[in-house]
Amino acid sequence: MSRECLLIIGGVAAGMSAASRARKINARLEIVVLEKGEYVSYGTCGLPYYVGNQVRRPEELVVYTPEFFRRERNIDVRTGHEAVEIVPGQKRVRALRKGSQETVFQYDKLIVATGGAPATEIYGSDAANVFTCNDLAGAVALKEFMEKHRPRRAVIVGGGYIGLEVAEAFVANGMAVTVLERSGSALENLEPELSQKLEMRLEDAGVRLIKDAAVRAIAGSGGPPRMATVVEYGTSGSLDCDLVLLATGIVPRTELAREAGIRLGQTGAIAVDERMATNLPGIYAAGDCVETPHLVLGRPVYVPLGTTANKQGRVAGENAAGGNARFGGIVGTAVTKVFGLEIARTGLTAAEARAAGFLCDSVVLEHTSRARYFEGKRILLKMVFDRNSERLLGVQMLGEEGAGKRIDVAATALHAGMKIGQVAQLDLSYAPPVAPVWEALLIAANEALKKMRR
Amino acid sequence: MSRECLLIIGGVAAGMSAASRARKINARLEIVVLEKGEYVSYGTCGLPYYVGNQVRRPEELVVYTPEFFRRERNIDVRTGHEAVEIVPGQKRVRALRKGSQETVFQYDKLIVATGGAPATEIYGSDAANVFTCNDLAGAVALKEFMEKHRPRRAVIVGGGYIGLEVAEAFVANGMAVTVLERSGSALENLEPELSQKLEMRLEDAGVRLIKDAAVRAIAGSGGPPRMATVVEYGTSGSLDCDLVLLATGIVPRTELAREAGIRLGQTGAIAVDERMATNLPGIYAAGDCVETPHLVLGRPVYVPLGTTANKQGRVAGENAAGGNARFGGIVGTAVTKVFGLEIARTGLTAAEARAAGFLCDSVVLEHTSRARYFEGKRILLKMVFDRNSERLLGVQMLGEEGAGKRIDVAATALHAGMKIGQVAQLDLSYAPPVAPVWEALLIAANEALKKMRR
Repeated sequence: MSRECLLIIGGVAAGMSAASRARKINARLEIVVLEKGEYVSYGTCGLPYYVGNQVRRPEELVVYTPEFFRRERNIDVRTGHEAVEIVPGQKRVRALRKGSQETVFQYDKLIVATGGAPATEIYGSDAANVFTCNDLAGAVALKEFMEKHRPRRAVIVGGGYIGLEVAEAFVANGMAVTVLERSGSALENLEPELSQKLEMRLEDAGVRLIKDAAVRAIAGSGGPPRMATVVEYGTSGSLDCDLVLLATGIVPRTELAREAGIRLGQTGAIAVDERMATNLPGIYAAGDCVETPHLVLGRPVYVPLGTTANKQGRVAGENAAGGNARFGGIVGTAVTKVFGLEIARTGLTAAEARAAGFLCDSVVLEHTSRARYFEGKRILLKMVFDRNSERLLGVQMLGEEGAGKRIDVAATALHAGMKIGQVAQLDLSYAPPVAPVWEALLIAANEALKKMRR
Repeated sequence: MSRECLLIIGGVAAGMSAASRARKINARLEIVVLEKGEYVSYGTCGLPYYVGNQVRRPEELVVYTPEFFRRERNIDVRTGHEAVEIVPGQKRVRALRKGSQETVFQYDKLIVATGGAPATEIYGSDAANVFTCNDLAGAVALKEFMEKHRPRRAVIVGGGYIGLEVAEAFVANGMAVTVLERSGSALENLEPELSQKLEMRLEDAGVRLIKDAAVRAIAGSGGPPRMATVVEYGTSGSLDCDLVLLATGIVPRTELAREAGIRLGQTGAIAVDERMATNLPGIYAAGDCVETPHLVLGRPVYVPLGTTANKQGRVAGENAAGGNARFGGIVGTAVTKVFGLEIARTGLTAAEARAAGFLCDSVVLEHTSRARYFEGKRILLKMVFDRNSERLLGVQMLGEEGAGKRIDVAATALHAGMKIGQVAQLDLSYAPPVAPVWEALLIAANEALKKMRR
């Protein structure tokens, strides 16, 4: 009798976490990973720092190579293999390899980790100097272009995490940067009080941010290859450019799954249960292609992030290998550091809370990261809470130091469903070189209590 | 009818927090604070940094002056007033003022915030060059002596937080430092795995640490004033010295309370309820003179810390002024930063957990504070958990960066009574410049789960 086979489609965060975990759980399992790109197991979140030269070679972002997986973990990684069809009835996946014939892979268990794709529908975005930074191949192409052509003027479409992180990388490369943001604020869901500080910082860094600026088209000339020369936005805006980055977010890559009869959720991403199982027996899914329960909202959301992909991949791999693990969901935690500012969030913004029907209220305050004689830095904090249940709903923080990791306390409180009164009681660490005697979060909780008692 | 009067004995952290909170709750209340020292409302935890010259003038440690309290908050602060008797039957406190007659203060509500006193019973410790660093007056005397006499060899009795923090201050002043620690480890309750790293760092910094070294006597010569010249320890050890610091911890200052019939708890500190009320009607207590419920142990402990004192003072002040606040207890969180190492703890150590009857187990691991291409620093973590309930019992962390504030996540999980499986699920923030994709705490939780499932 042949060994049972686990097939995994996708070899980045979720896929390789799943493969490694499955191997730990089951030493006999045959494990095959199909990855259409050339690299596996790399940190997508590190791509902007490769563009910005903090990371010199693409290999530095790669945690393990295909050879490592084969040699050390007996995992058969097939790069350059693009899965093109899942046939659940026959437990088969058809894959294409560049310049080669179709291969058919038989599976007993399948994990779909097809990730996300750039959410891009802009006329003219096929020009040779228009890039994305969602996978390592894209980042490598972008950097090669920068090194060869030394572009001076960059237009970034989208002022989200990737957009701003690459903006910093471009500035570090001496480029003039304009960011076109469709919504009214950089980092779309940032609270207005924090947004203001971020915008000041962008201005100080010489980055031009144009808000409420939907891109109409990218005009180009020459070619082949055709080169983008102007980005048109709004009703009549236009920007000359030598390079365009599309950073408009990602959408789940679900074609394969959908066509195979795997159910999608209301967000459009693959629906899975706590065990990361899809509706089809023996088929799991994880990472940027699935939707995830939001524990504060109480419903699934699509928030593609590296940490979540790693956790989910681990759960899918364990279960596909015969174990029994569960992924509990997220509370909406995210952080970035751009131009010296750490900007972190967890839970809901006031607008999100209102939209979800909470009777929400909020407090905003600024406090210090350490005792003032240890050069404490200011942290701006907004806390959102529910006046009905008195529960914490969300926190955002922004500052030059300590805002990022401090958000984790609020995230933990959200996991526990804490009321504001409980947050105010938290026994948090204090010593002058690392913290103020009252953490901003505790002061905010006391302010929130006062507001509720009024 | 005269106004109701709130009298507070003690004007440092708990006392002044209480006074300020009482004023916010009740604008009409007469509020009088008796402080036997010259300073009020200062950060005791900052004293070692005054000795080490990060803080240049004692006034910088003072948050607000007596004049500020009088002018801005209508709080009558009497410095130089030592309360010598509480007479609950007559609602009176007798106080002495240096060079003046006894004064009697009438009260309607009383808050006892008498703090702690150095736990010192060493023969010869009355010499003129033997100091403590538990209050501002002591730190000022120590620094004056250092500036005047330029001592070269310091012996520190006690390797706890204050002992090590002042050791760093002495080294910064060019002194040769020996620390005598009675127990088998610096920071007595530090896990052995972390202790080792700390001791290596002390050695690198040129600090000599002698463990299991109980001090017998301090021998002196000359005088008056008599000067300590030799510290004798163990069975036959002796150290020449120009200066001695006693940092053997503090004990609650309870004489006044005890003599007035206020009940003490099993720890020897004043027993209070959630409202910080003592057994006597109208009398509250807060800060380093009271014992505090430990939420993991489920019983009161004596852990005198600045954050706790501030929180408790706030609660006592609110209740004494007619409000209704509660202090929920602590989980045993503490942090220090010495010689570049952040050392943090929350909950129980393995030894404490065993002593408390838990079927405890632990994992130890080292991980990074950020992505390696952002020069992440190593964090050494020990996690203690209960095999019966699968609950988290405690975490300790040590590292050059980020260990201090990361402990707060574990503290929050302890407040929520989380199981290890819940800790492993926490949605913590990730971005390469501020964190690794898997936080050390999450890896530890996964390791702990594995151990429990074996």
